Amino acid sequence: MKINEVFPLFNNKLTGLLKIEHPIIQAPMAGGITTSKLVAEVSNAGGLGMIGAGYMTPAQIRDQIKEIKQLTKEPIGINLFVPNEFTFTESEVNSANQLLQPIRNQLHIHQDKRIDIPTYESLVETFKEQVKLVIEERVPVCSFTFGIPPKEVIAELRTYGISLIGTATTVEEAIEVEKSGMNMVVAQGSEAGGHRGNFMTDSHDSLVGLMSLIPQIVDQVSIPVIAAGGIMDGRGLTASLCLGALGVQMGTAFLTCIESGANQKYKEAILRSSEDQIVLTRAFSGKWARGIKNKFIAEMEKHEGVLPEFPVQNTLTQPIRKASSSQQNADYLSLWSGQSPRLATTQSVRVLFNTILTEAKNIQNNF
Amino acid sequence: MKINEVFPLFNNKLTGLLKIEHPIIQAPMAGGITTSKLVAEVSNAGGLGMIGAGYMTPAQIRDQIKEIKQLTKEPIGINLFVPNEFTFTESEVNSANQLLQPIRNQLHIHQDKRIDIPTYESLVETFKEQVKLVIEERVPVCSFTFGIPPKEVIAELRTYGISLIGTATTVEEAIEVEKSGMNMVVAQGSEAGGHRGNFMTDSHDSLVGLMSLIPQIVDQVSIPVIAAGGIMDGRGLTASLCLGALGVQMGTAFLTCIESGANQKYKEAILRSSEDQIVLTRAFSGKWARGIKNKFIAEMEKHEGVLPEFPVQNTLTQPIRKASSSQQNADYLSLWSGQSPRLATTQSVRVLFNTILTEAKNIQNNF
Repeated sequence: MKINEVFPLFNNKLTGLLKIEHPIIQAPMAGGITTSKLVAEVSNAGGLGMIGAGYMTPAQIRDQIKEIKQLTKEPIGINLFVPNEFTFTESEVNSANQLLQPIRNQLHIHQDKRIDIPTYESLVETFKEQVKLVIEERVPVCSFTFGIPPKEVIAELRTYGISLIGTATTVEEAIEVEKSGMNMVVAQGSEAGGHRGNFMTDSHDSLVGLMSLIPQIVDQVSIPVIAAGGIMDGRGLTASLCLGALGVQMGTAFLTCIESGANQKYKEAILRSSEDQIVLTRAFSGKWARGIKNKFIAEMEKHEGVLPEFPVQNTLTQPIRKASSSQQNADYLSLWSGQSPRLATTQSVRVLFNTILTEAKNIQNNF
Repeated sequence: MKINEVFPLFNNKLTGLLKIEHPIIQAPMAGGITTSKLVAEVSNAGGLGMIGAGYMTPAQIRDQIKEIKQLTKEPIGINLFVPNEFTFTESEVNSANQLLQPIRNQLHIHQDKRIDIPTYESLVETFKEQVKLVIEERVPVCSFTFGIPPKEVIAELRTYGISLIGTATTVEEAIEVEKSGMNMVVAQGSEAGGHRGNFMTDSHDSLVGLMSLIPQIVDQVSIPVIAAGGIMDGRGLTASLCLGALGVQMGTAFLTCIESGANQKYKEAILRSSEDQIVLTRAFSGKWARGIKNKFIAEMEKHEGVLPEFPVQNTLTQPIRKASSSQQNADYLSLWSGQSPRLATTQSVRVLFNTILTEAKNIQNNF
């Protein structure tokens, strides 16, 4: 029996646009988590695997796409960060460096030269090259976080038939995403792990739970809405569909899969964590993000107000996160996680899909 | 056709325990919102109407129960606040009074004597009398917020066959509620309007969205779980059932009903509000609560850290809220609301129930 007959709700505008069987999108997590194997396995299982390319160079992206194409013939997607202008002062950076130096020493990071902070112009340049590559490689789906790309970029990508997904944390942002000409919108609930995708509303005012966010967005836009935040299983999937979303984007659930490239210490931290240990912090990047409270977050907590903004703080902490990862030390890693760590499990992507679909089927039978 | 045949999921342990037809509980909102008419109409419609008795005297409670019994033969419930010890200093109170005085002047509040702050002992005394009354009147259901009542109280209430509902904002709190011997637990998501019910975890760490909170609690307790926070319609109801809750508790949705006793200005404020205007504040009571950001919240925002704790601040702002209400001025009212104000509508309780059930039926048909 075909899956669309089993789940009539799966045969919707979203799965049609994305040409996928199950309305399950693997969140494009940046920082080496979305390995080629993870992305390909999700797409092979009937979902949409996505490359978290925010911090990747065009050359790295090209190599990964080549690798993925050898592992799957199914559609995949890619996520890019929309560059935003930023300012910083020398003294801000100096005091942030002063806070970080004891940690760098502890991790034996020997910096012989000062850390170069990228310019806004260089980020725009990289973004343009990333977009060019998405077109050259004809990646079928491209999603954006931290804002809406310029009109010309959207128009050009659409010329090539690439499906575009925006990210919204409020109704107002979702309306802007629709107006911009994007084809779908991710509704990022307050439950979501990693960076907040807000771009119009203040971070804290945009912390809207999915139970509230999905129906309010669904009522105000006509493009398909994808629910994101805390969704880990068939319960979250069916609940999101009841609320009016046409699909889900799951991050943490895929992060602890065997195929994910997350550091083993990071996976273990999620697997033994509880919902009340997941906090919001801007200590790692200068932008608010949700993750497990570890030593770094605790130490930086009282300085949170004075840290430089994104991507300045992100650049300053980069050597710390890198050293912490290679030293298998979770104290100074950014352990991004949604609010449902108790539901995280370790298994292959294939088994996770089977579990989700079986659970969804059982719920459907009880209705 | 009986409703349980239409919705097999409605025929569950929760509706069985509460002896109600639909798993829909009207949240016990304090401050005059839960009129006898509102409570009775909810119960007459097949849900559970509840008296928000937190701030009510035993005499007031007795009168209201008498009134309700003339309007319905169906089960009703009542909510009590569990008293918690608190401390305050004279200087804290003085500086809070200094902040409040310009507002009192503006509202022409002439206080000839100082405001008496209740003692913990007097609150305990009132609580004991409230419990005594619940027993005397044989109220079938009693729920608690801000903590777990003493063992003896739980044991005594259970002796009389009164069903007990606790409130939890984290898994740990839900486990404690179950351990205490209560029969059911409300899982209060971060979306919820009004006071946060946390009693073990810090308020901000307990801001867990329902999409995450419900399944994580359901997995850890065996008593029925009731979802609360941002649920306004058939979408929220069916989604909550998918997540494993056996019913929902809705506040804001009933607050704008014709039968609710909320000030007209308060109802209007919710009806024209949006999700990004709903904030957390401790300005009104000293305890974190969610409501529409108005002039009072904005003015007190930068002093939030130094305000006295609950119930001290609540006592100090009481004349302001009262005067604001009688002057039809929403600027200084506590406009508690969940995160879904865009879904609020005005109608009778009966029409609201019909709308919810029709919507739930449509969703069920699509599954």
